[in-house]
Amino acid sequence: MAYKYIEGSVTAAKGFKASGVHCGIRKNKTKRDIGLIFCEKKCTAAAVYTTNLVQSSPITITKKNLADGYAQAVIANSGNANTCNADGDIKAQQMCDLTAAALGINADDVIVASTGVIGQILPIEPIESGIPELVKELSEQGSSDAAEAIMTTDTVKKEVAVETAIGGKTVKIGGISKGSGMIHPNMATMLCFVTTDAAISSEMLDKAVKETADETFNMISIDGDTSTNDMLSVMASGLAGNAEITEAGQDYDDFVEALTAVCRELSKKMAKDGEGATKLLICKVSGAKTEKDAKGVAKSVICSSLLKAAMFGADANWGRVLCAIGYSGCDVDVHKTDVSFASDKGSISVCKNGAGIEFSEETAKEILLRDEIEIIVELNEGEGFAEAYGCDLTYDYVKINGDYRT
Amino acid sequence: MAYKYIEGSVTAAKGFKASGVHCGIRKNKTKRDIGLIFCEKKCTAAAVYTTNLVQSSPITITKKNLADGYAQAVIANSGNANTCNADGDIKAQQMCDLTAAALGINADDVIVASTGVIGQILPIEPIESGIPELVKELSEQGSSDAAEAIMTTDTVKKEVAVETAIGGKTVKIGGISKGSGMIHPNMATMLCFVTTDAAISSEMLDKAVKETADETFNMISIDGDTSTNDMLSVMASGLAGNAEITEAGQDYDDFVEALTAVCRELSKKMAKDGEGATKLLICKVSGAKTEKDAKGVAKSVICSSLLKAAMFGADANWGRVLCAIGYSGCDVDVHKTDVSFASDKGSISVCKNGAGIEFSEETAKEILLRDEIEIIVELNEGEGFAEAYGCDLTYDYVKINGDYRT
Repeated sequence: MAYKYIEGSVTAAKGFKASGVHCGIRKNKTKRDIGLIFCEKKCTAAAVYTTNLVQSSPITITKKNLADGYAQAVIANSGNANTCNADGDIKAQQMCDLTAAALGINADDVIVASTGVIGQILPIEPIESGIPELVKELSEQGSSDAAEAIMTTDTVKKEVAVETAIGGKTVKIGGISKGSGMIHPNMATMLCFVTTDAAISSEMLDKAVKETADETFNMISIDGDTSTNDMLSVMASGLAGNAEITEAGQDYDDFVEALTAVCRELSKKMAKDGEGATKLLICKVSGAKTEKDAKGVAKSVICSSLLKAAMFGADANWGRVLCAIGYSGCDVDVHKTDVSFASDKGSISVCKNGAGIEFSEETAKEILLRDEIEIIVELNEGEGFAEAYGCDLTYDYVKINGDYRT
Repeated sequence: MAYKYIEGSVTAAKGFKASGVHCGIRKNKTKRDIGLIFCEKKCTAAAVYTTNLVQSSPITITKKNLADGYAQAVIANSGNANTCNADGDIKAQQMCDLTAAALGINADDVIVASTGVIGQILPIEPIESGIPELVKELSEQGSSDAAEAIMTTDTVKKEVAVETAIGGKTVKIGGISKGSGMIHPNMATMLCFVTTDAAISSEMLDKAVKETADETFNMISIDGDTSTNDMLSVMASGLAGNAEITEAGQDYDDFVEALTAVCRELSKKMAKDGEGATKLLICKVSGAKTEKDAKGVAKSVICSSLLKAAMFGADANWGRVLCAIGYSGCDVDVHKTDVSFASDKGSISVCKNGAGIEFSEETAKEILLRDEIEIIVELNEGEGFAEAYGCDLTYDYVKINGDYRT
């Protein structure tokens, strides 16, 4: 029914510790490149993954390890995606084996993830030497180090935590995520690890993760490219002491509400930190015939390169919004569509019933020069509502991606 | 069976004249902004249009006028798309009425098209005063002026013509097109007008246009945005004197082959002149289970923002090719996929059976620094083949679209 944001992220919930160190996958010694999350007890766990046919080796191994619905640790590196490598599965399994041995747990209770360049052989030696250090560094204050360790072109760490009450007990949920380019999630997102002390069965956690991903990470697009390594995992320690959630009902709804809050904030942080981005774009679509149509329209608008470039230029080019609605493939009567732009400077209506209306370009400019912009679409045909998250398209996106590998 | 490229474009075929002038829709007086193509006799005619639900008023009027399969003139302006305007249909009809009156033909034999900013009222006065001048200027040398008149952010005119033999008679087919941004055609493209002196029934012309568009314009993407104004029209005067093509057979195949050559060359010219582009990208996919899978894969690769940025940077980041194949939604076994890059400097293999192979970064750089790059994908699963056309993503794309309206 209610939740509040609190400090911290993956170590906010009871039972979790984290760490992040530089092990040598990256040449830059000042950048942490491997992170660990560990729970003192075995957790129920669930995850969603990219739908890309090309999937990273860590995803293959994690799927196998989570088949039983339990996990106790997450090991994740940046600097190398371990994707499209002939020996990828072997290396990902080695990461689990090394982590399990150092922690004294089972290798099939380890979630493994990698992010970075595709198609370069992952060196195992730095990981081998880094894991003992990671275990030594584990602490309740280590979440920021772990968040930093999974960053690639990200410019800021992404950490969120909330506190809520479930069945009369205080429950915490917190997460870290990374992702800045190749972001157009489908059923999952770039790397995101969430922990909670809620008691919830593997089955209900699986359901909650899927529902939440659809509303949050699956509604982000930074560049339309669905990554090969996307993964969102949630581990629940049960240490909050609530009666285990094993079926639909108030407790489950409260859990999903709080989990969604964590994932939505992480989604916004990712979109705002999209490669080269100067602005967060939120497209709010209401009045759609169905929620599916609302989602399709919101995502189509947020994905338009032309609109993204216009937003970078603070240009109220609403024709591009209508154009993107028109090719969304959704059931929409564009002659009923209204469009307005908003930010913390105010709101301005620019299109009514699918046609332009007079508006002050000066006011529009003032609104669009801010760093969080809402593109508000009212379809006037039903009750369907959705939000999608993206960012502007800038010179720096081109710069970052013109020569990412070197 | 055979065709050759010749000089000229829409006035190469017998019976056609064209012109282009500055009438005042644009402020810049040195830029022609309205063009006319006229045939001395009524032609069979066919067209394909954007599938965007938001469609320009000129498309609405042209669809009505081409319902009977005949046309005699094309009137087209740049600088204003006449889309999402309450009075748009009235203005588009006025353009046809004014053109017909000045030429002494029926208003429903006029194809009308507009391109430019969406959602700004089209002023009719400049068009009213420009049409008499256009008619006066009509000549067999006027095709370049017409090609210039339809340019928006295009940096070069796009003109192509071929000569072929059909049933023992020499037949010419030529076309002009424009398009630089908001290019991701679906069933048609930005503005493209083709003329021919072949004799072909309206029904067979319609079939030929659809087939050709699917192979050529529908395989271009510059920025993933499907325009509201896309239109490809073909007018056939019959003055070549061949026996009218009224059914499938050798004559029809010869016609389609030559029409496809014109449209493919115009497609490449458009892709190479994509907004801000420095390179033409051609993705050639072979070995797909079906042609549909080949097309889907080729288009997915050519649309990837990340790959487009990598090509701008001459970076052989083949992982992004595999990633785009993986999310294409096509039936592909990525473990069988080979990738290589080629240009007029040579060819280099970078991925075999879905995994990286050693290659010289130096040689790859040399190949990728050229201005026409082939991305060659061999799926090793069947006979399906397709080509898609696109361009790199550059700083200038962002610059052009950051403030297009002013």
